[in-house]
Formats: sequence, C-alpha cells, structure tokens
Amino acid sequence: MIIDCHGHYTTEPKDLHRFRKEQIAAANAKDKTALPSRASLKMSDDEIRESIEQNQLKLQRERGTDLTIFSPRASGMGHHIGDESISFEWSQICNDLIHRVCALYPKNFIGVCQLPQSPGVPPKNSAAELERCVKELGFVGCNLNPDPSGGYFNSPPLTEKWWYPFYEKMIELDVPAMIHVSGCCNPAMHTTGSYYLNADTMAFMQLILSDLFKDFPTLKLIIPHGGGAVPFHWGRFRGLALNNGRPELDEIIKNNIFFDTCVYHQPGINLLTDVVPVENILFASEMVGAVKGVDPKTGFNFDDTKRYIEKAPRLSDADRAKIFEGNARRVYPRLKTKATVKAAV
Amino acid sequence: MIIDCHGHYTTEPKDLHRFRKEQIAAANAKDKTALPSRASLKMSDDEIRESIEQNQLKLQRERGTDLTIFSPRASGMGHHIGDESISFEWSQICNDLIHRVCALYPKNFIGVCQLPQSPGVPPKNSAAELERCVKELGFVGCNLNPDPSGGYFNSPPLTEKWWYPFYEKMIELDVPAMIHVSGCCNPAMHTTGSYYLNADTMAFMQLILSDLFKDFPTLKLIIPHGGGAVPFHWGRFRGLALNNGRPELDEIIKNNIFFDTCVYHQPGINLLTDVVPVENILFASEMVGAVKGVDPKTGFNFDDTKRYIEKAPRLSDADRAKIFEGNARRVYPRLKTKATVKAAV
Repeated sequence: MIIDCHGHYTTEPKDLHRFRKEQIAAANAKDKTALPSRASLKMSDDEIRESIEQNQLKLQRERGTDLTIFSPRASGMGHHIGDESISFEWSQICNDLIHRVCALYPKNFIGVCQLPQSPGVPPKNSAAELERCVKELGFVGCNLNPDPSGGYFNSPPLTEKWWYPFYEKMIELDVPAMIHVSGCCNPAMHTTGSYYLNADTMAFMQLILSDLFKDFPTLKLIIPHGGGAVPFHWGRFRGLALNNGRPELDEIIKNNIFFDTCVYHQPGINLLTDVVPVENILFASEMVGAVKGVDPKTGFNFDDTKRYIEKAPRLSDADRAKIFEGNARRVYPRLKTKATVKAAV
Repeated sequence: MIIDCHGHYTTEPKDLHRFRKEQIAAANAKDKTALPSRASLKMSDDEIRESIEQNQLKLQRERGTDLTIFSPRASGMGHHIGDESISFEWSQICNDLIHRVCALYPKNFIGVCQLPQSPGVPPKNSAAELERCVKELGFVGCNLNPDPSGGYFNSPPLTEKWWYPFYEKMIELDVPAMIHVSGCCNPAMHTTGSYYLNADTMAFMQLILSDLFKDFPTLKLIIPHGGGAVPFHWGRFRGLALNNGRPELDEIIKNNIFFDTCVYHQPGINLLTDVVPVENILFASEMVGAVKGVDPKTGFNFDDTKRYIEKAPRLSDADRAKIFEGNARRVYPRLKTKATVKAAV
C-alpha cells in the first residue's frame, strides 16, 4: 500500500472561491453584515466528484498510489486575512469540504485539517476545531502554521509555551501536525518557491536546539517539502547541533521529526534518502500542488515523486516499504482505525 | 591557485567589540554625545597579525588554499541597529580593518566590503562607500544585504528599482555582490542555521522570475551557502520557472548568478555539483565561520570544503580548476589587477 501524506484539495468547486472572495471583501471592509452566509455555498456531490476524479484520483491511479492524507489548499488557509472569527468560519468550511471528499472516496482519501489560527491569537484556540475534525470527521492530523502573519515570521518559535496547549490536545488525540505555512503576503517571498521552504528550515532549526521533545516525548511533527534546506545542509545542521551541546541529528529527530518526499528531482531524493534515516521519511507528492506539468528532461511530472523513490539507489525494498507505508502508519496512528471511524461517520 | 570567495574576519581584535558595544548602547540610548570615537580604537598590527596567523592564515596553509576574498563578520554588520549614520560609521571601521588585514597579507587576502545599509534607507546611499572601498582600498566586491531589518524581510525584492542605482555603481566599478544578510534579531530564526539559508533561497526566487538581468546583463550576484535550499529543490525551481514562462535555470543563471560551496558535507557538495552548472560554482568555505569544529564522522573540519570538492565524483580536473580559480576570476574581474592595486595602496 502506498500512502501519500501530503495532498491538498486544490481543485475545489467554484463556489468555494466565490464565498472566500466575498468573505475577504467583507473582512477588509470591516462590515460584518456583508459577510456571505455558509448556507449560500453551492457545492454538489457531483461537482466534488468531478473535481477529484479528473485530478487527484486520476493521478493516484496513473501513478499507482493508494491513499492520500488530504487537507485544504495550504496557500488558501490565509490565516493573516481578517480576524479569528473569519479564520474560524473559513477553516470549518474547508474542513467540512475535505470531509465530504473523504466520505465520497473513503478508500482513497483521509482528512487532515486546517486550523483557525490568526495572528497574535493563542494556538490553544485551535484545539477545539482539531478535536471536532478528529472525533466527528475522522481526521488523522492537522496542518499547523508557524507563521500566521503570512510572511513576516513574527510568531513565537514553535518551542515556546505559547504552543504547548495545542500540543497537549494533539497528544490527547494521538495525531501529528505537518508544519505548513499558508499563502505569502510579503512581496519579498514567493509562496511555493521560497516561503514554504523557508518556514520548513526555520521550524527545523527551532526544534533541534530546544527541549520541546523532552516536554512532549510523543509529539510528532512532519516538516514538508523534504525538510526545506535541511538535508542539503545536513552537515551544517549537524555541526550547529553538536556545537550547541546537542546530540547527532539522527538522535534528535528519531521519534519526533519527519520529512516528506516533496522534492521534485532525482538528485534531491537521492540526497534526502542518503542523509536522513529512512525511518524519518514519509512518502508524499503534494499533488495537485506547487509544481504542475511535465519535466521536459524526464518526460514525467515533476511531482511524480514515487518514481524518484523507486530509483533512489540507496534504498532497499524494505526501506521503500517504510517510506511508502510503514512510517506513515507509525506517525499517523489513527490511520489504523480508519475503517472503524469511517463506518461510524 | 585556490581562491576562497567567502571568508569573514570573525577573529577581530578585542577593542573592536568594545567599540561596537559602546556604539550600540549609545545608538539605543539615543544620546549621540555618548558615541565612542573612532580615534579611541586600539587595534595594533601585531594584534591583527596574531588573530589572522592563528586562524584564517593557519587554516589556509593547513588546507592548501591560497587567497581568501575577505569581508567583515557578516553577522556583525547589524544593519538593523541604530540609524544610517551608525551603520555608516561602523561599516567604514570594519572595511578599514579588512584593508589592514589585506595590506599585511596581500598574497593571502583581498577585500570585500560591508555596506552602510539601514532599514528603509535607499541602497543608492551605499554607493559611495562601495566606491571608496574599490578605488581607495582595492576591494573587489561587496556584501549586499537583502534584509537590513535583521529578520523580518520587509525590504523591496532585489529586483525592484529601489536597488537599481546601487547596481549601476557595481557595474561602473566592475564588481559583484554576494547577497548576504547579517545577524538575526527575529527570535523565530537562527542566524547561521535558518536565517542565512532563507535569505539565499528568497533571493534566488526573486531573481529567477524577474527581468533584472535584461536591465543589467553584466550584473553578477553570488548566492552563498550553496544557494540555500535551491540545489536540493532544483526540480521545484525549474518547474516554477518553466510554469512562469521562463527558460531553464541553467540559462537564467548563466552569466549572472553564482553559488558558493559553503555546504558542509560530501552528499551536499555532490548534489550541488551534480545539478548546478560547474561554471556557476565558486569555491568557498566561510571559515572561520558558521560551523566550527571537527565532524566526528569524518575526522575533518565541517567547513573544510576543499575536501568535498576534491572527492565530488562528477567533477573532472578541469571542472575543479574552474571552481577553485577560473570562475572566481571571471566573477571578480578586479582580482586580475590585484597586484597593481596593492602596489598603489
């Protein structure tokens, strides 16, 4: 079985965009009476089916993957837009939509939620939505935004007490978080080109010099996009850890930090699988996501990362089985109760 | 000949730190009368000699490198501290100190300057100090800070007209710039662990989607630390460029963007030299810099990057000659007039 731990619903029904546009306009106008109503949303099952069958499901079948851990469009979370109430309404709508996809295709998709974060608002305020998504919708994790400002990195580091109540809820529910920023409103950074990768690198560096995992030994965090710059600079990060009296990175990350395989060329995946312990790598493609289209040099889609894993020279078949399935089952423990949860919904 | 294009004077005489501490205290107190005087600085030639001979020069000899393109401590530039006048005074002092090192060891060091940048101050205001350093001190380049705020990335992208007058001066003087941030005052980021790399990645993404090099076909920019996250995500950046109607990265960077080799492990250098054209790679170690000490797995210093270049399997002897010397002579044209300039000083 091949589990893709990083897929976003980037082909949403049109009316969701209409709603969001109106919601943003109202939020910016500070005229809450003009907010669109949730009841106004028109997204039929047929429309959802078509958007999935022509895209994510088609690609799953073509590429031979089985289950996508599926969440709302990351760049669309837009935590910097409006206030907490706007973020809350939008997050619930997006999460409910993911739930509909998962209910229509229970064998192919399982949900991960976006959180109602907002700049300056304590992360503990997101705990209730996480609980709703896990307990009522059968979701198995969440995307946690380390920079709700959308590009100015002015939140406390992930290792600060500010985040602890939210981690407590994650542990209570036995779910991991993928550390994932949203769309960038800072003109200096490109959302999928530099901002995503920079947030990944920032998060890793915060974590390795901290005692966070002493406080939360079972906390599991996935750093997407192959860990940003980290594997390429594994020697730099090893050296900085050792110079700061920390152990080797392999030891630091062992039970707590995982990288996905959203790295869109063979040499990158070769490096990732060469330096990062195989137990800490989760298969992912981020499709349909950041980089669409065919690589003219290979003839295959840039984001068809399964091919790169299959060709990575250092990996044994047992290693590939861990990356494709075993590690995901360990990091997302609720995957194993999937059938039960789905039946109960 | 082996030219290291990225070395900082990180072993400065003690009194420089005393001066800076007093200068910062005065800047924060907003009491300019308390500013220390430049004349108060006590840094003897003997002290400079000892600091260099026990460190950078010793390492040059041990490792077998010949010439270091040498600049003030990057994390010490501190453009976010005080105002433009503070930055100007501090930059001149640091640059003059580099000049003294280069005058004492003209065969081993050649200068690159720090610029008197300050948040919100137009980069054109740095043109005069660049000119002074090149024409009067014989320097061959500069370090240009894309984020003088020290970690909040609120400057216009490097491709904006805001920077153009400075680029015009660079071209007039025939010198390149290394894009290099300074110390980070944002608690979310670690200076050498995430901030430096994030600025590198940010800068590259700004450049590849722009027409900057149509406006300045001879502008040469070095992105340090192996290009941040870029080589590891070469497929992502290629895909994003192609999706935006741009050519292949090799073509975009050809005459204008160069990566150094400050990547502190063999797999990282292997990847760098595998994906980036050899013509766009400059040898560098950043020593004595971000990562001190011996890698317990190899028995050699993390930042002894010459070893990694020597062992990179894809490189021919001709490739290594380009990386070690040829490319630097092309990117820093004033290196060739070094002897003349030094004689004139």
